Amino acid sequence: MKAIRNQYLFAIALLAAMVFTSTLARAADPLPSWNDGPAKQSIVTFVEKVTTPGSPDFVPVPERIATFDNDGTLWSEKPLPVQVYFALDRVKTLAPQHPEWKTKEPFASILKGDPKGLMAGGERGLVEMIMATHTGNTTVEFEQIVKDWIATAKHPKTGKLYTEMVYQPMLEVLAYLRENGFKTFIVSGGGIEFMRPWTEKTYGIPPEQVVGSSVKTKFELRDGQPVLVRLPELNFNDDKGGKPVGINEHIGRRPVMAFGNSDGDLQMLQWTAAGTGARFALYVHHDDAAREYVYDREDALARLNKGLDEAAAKCWTVVSMKNDWKTIFPVEKK
Amino acid sequence: MKAIRNQYLFAIALLAAMVFTSTLARAADPLPSWNDGPAKQSIVTFVEKVTTPGSPDFVPVPERIATFDNDGTLWSEKPLPVQVYFALDRVKTLAPQHPEWKTKEPFASILKGDPKGLMAGGERGLVEMIMATHTGNTTVEFEQIVKDWIATAKHPKTGKLYTEMVYQPMLEVLAYLRENGFKTFIVSGGGIEFMRPWTEKTYGIPPEQVVGSSVKTKFELRDGQPVLVRLPELNFNDDKGGKPVGINEHIGRRPVMAFGNSDGDLQMLQWTAAGTGARFALYVHHDDAAREYVYDREDALARLNKGLDEAAAKCWTVVSMKNDWKTIFPVEKK
Repeated sequence: MKAIRNQYLFAIALLAAMVFTSTLARAADPLPSWNDGPAKQSIVTFVEKVTTPGSPDFVPVPERIATFDNDGTLWSEKPLPVQVYFALDRVKTLAPQHPEWKTKEPFASILKGDPKGLMAGGERGLVEMIMATHTGNTTVEFEQIVKDWIATAKHPKTGKLYTEMVYQPMLEVLAYLRENGFKTFIVSGGGIEFMRPWTEKTYGIPPEQVVGSSVKTKFELRDGQPVLVRLPELNFNDDKGGKPVGINEHIGRRPVMAFGNSDGDLQMLQWTAAGTGARFALYVHHDDAAREYVYDREDALARLNKGLDEAAAKCWTVVSMKNDWKTIFPVEKK
Repeated sequence: MKAIRNQYLFAIALLAAMVFTSTLARAADPLPSWNDGPAKQSIVTFVEKVTTPGSPDFVPVPERIATFDNDGTLWSEKPLPVQVYFALDRVKTLAPQHPEWKTKEPFASILKGDPKGLMAGGERGLVEMIMATHTGNTTVEFEQIVKDWIATAKHPKTGKLYTEMVYQPMLEVLAYLRENGFKTFIVSGGGIEFMRPWTEKTYGIPPEQVVGSSVKTKFELRDGQPVLVRLPELNFNDDKGGKPVGINEHIGRRPVMAFGNSDGDLQMLQWTAAGTGARFALYVHHDDAAREYVYDREDALARLNKGLDEAAAKCWTVVSMKNDWKTIFPVEKK
């Protein structure tokens, strides 16, 4: 009887210990939306080795810089990048002030609801649309326009807010790095002023840590009030070789970690990986047809071709969205 | 006898209380190198009102941005801005590789030890000298050149290192603001890559919080190694109306406080002061012939003319270096 009771107590204690340990493990897991595997392990191992005092790879806190591409790395960029939907909506909003758009491409196609006409115009049509819809106002006005739009615009397939189509596993990486003394930056081909109005709330990344493409601006006094006017002229194209240029201009330090998803990020990853000491480069690979999209070597807008080869050659981390991520998007708030 | 003893004890207690209070006051004074007066008071009053929870002027921590001009605001810029001495020394270093400079201005005058010839060439000569001495190398090479120079180059009048010719009262303002949750930025007409190698050690301002003028850079792979090459082409002139442009591009938030010393800073102060809510603008006025330099309305390189008028009209703080500052430079370390 006594022996049975002891066994019973022992079993209870064992169970309690298991529950406790598993709770601890869960509490301690900084990346709960990642499946255990080499991708997750590579992130944790790297962060531990550069933040452990006395480690040969230790990096002092001020030098802990991590840069993230945005479109396709932190949020979804399909069927079209979010900023394109913003521009398309702006064309419709501004159309009454531009009667000439009824017959002028790419605007005529857009107003007829045929965005393929826009794509047929290639990069030139795209640039023309961006300039017509993103400039001519002040920086303060433009910020408000973006804030109003992003608060209500919905993804054409999922019907979710665009800010709900961010990747939960990447939000966890951002938070994990910040908890470990990293400053997290966005380095995106997207417009710097298109991102800043919502990155702080969505990613915890403040405006001063957002690097992106930009138009020229001009300081003016209007009735004695200073304004910055957005001019229809490209200032900086933060893509491909422009990414290390933008990093150098805005941050002035080489990142210790860099995250991307396309060949447009390759130079950022090369620049990061070429630094002295421990460095980390990661590609998000879109291979999940069921939960997101599948695209890589042949994609027109976000090709990942050279990058896949270089990642393999240099042993960079390649994340399979399908296999490495338990969930893609944040669970909806009730 | 007892009465006398009581009086004696009372006097001791009073003295102790006075010593204690004065010690407390000293310990609590965040700006010990500032004389008590309206300038010092305006800084402390402003910081207290924007950082006191529940104050109608309260500013949340992420929005506490303070921007500082560098030349003449954080360190001395006379007889010539420090970067000009750097360029002059670079001309001498590079001369053996440029035999044509012996007869070509402004280089010929510089090599003959006549920097007046440089100034006679005006802005064009200056730009030519800057491009010839600041470009053609990689960003990594240029950073090392600046580090080596700033570690040993001496001011022509005082014989001190240039980094010893920073203003102690402004170092105290930088530290005071950071203790109160502000992010401190440099926004200078000087070269961004000329400042970054030493601002963290000298001012506690990391590279990513330095905004300045820049040349264009280009990403290249050299023998498979990525480099950023500094091109002899102006990218951005961070002066006058360029300062709000640079602030918007790099920081993406309007500063709450701005500090300058010349008309080149006027637009930054206007842009700052025009924000909603509490804002603070300050000019350092160089009026101390005995301890530093005297210059304002007529100065060729760092004129403070319109700025003095606007500061008076708008009740901005104007610091008299002579009257408001107990000491100008940090006490030499023994």
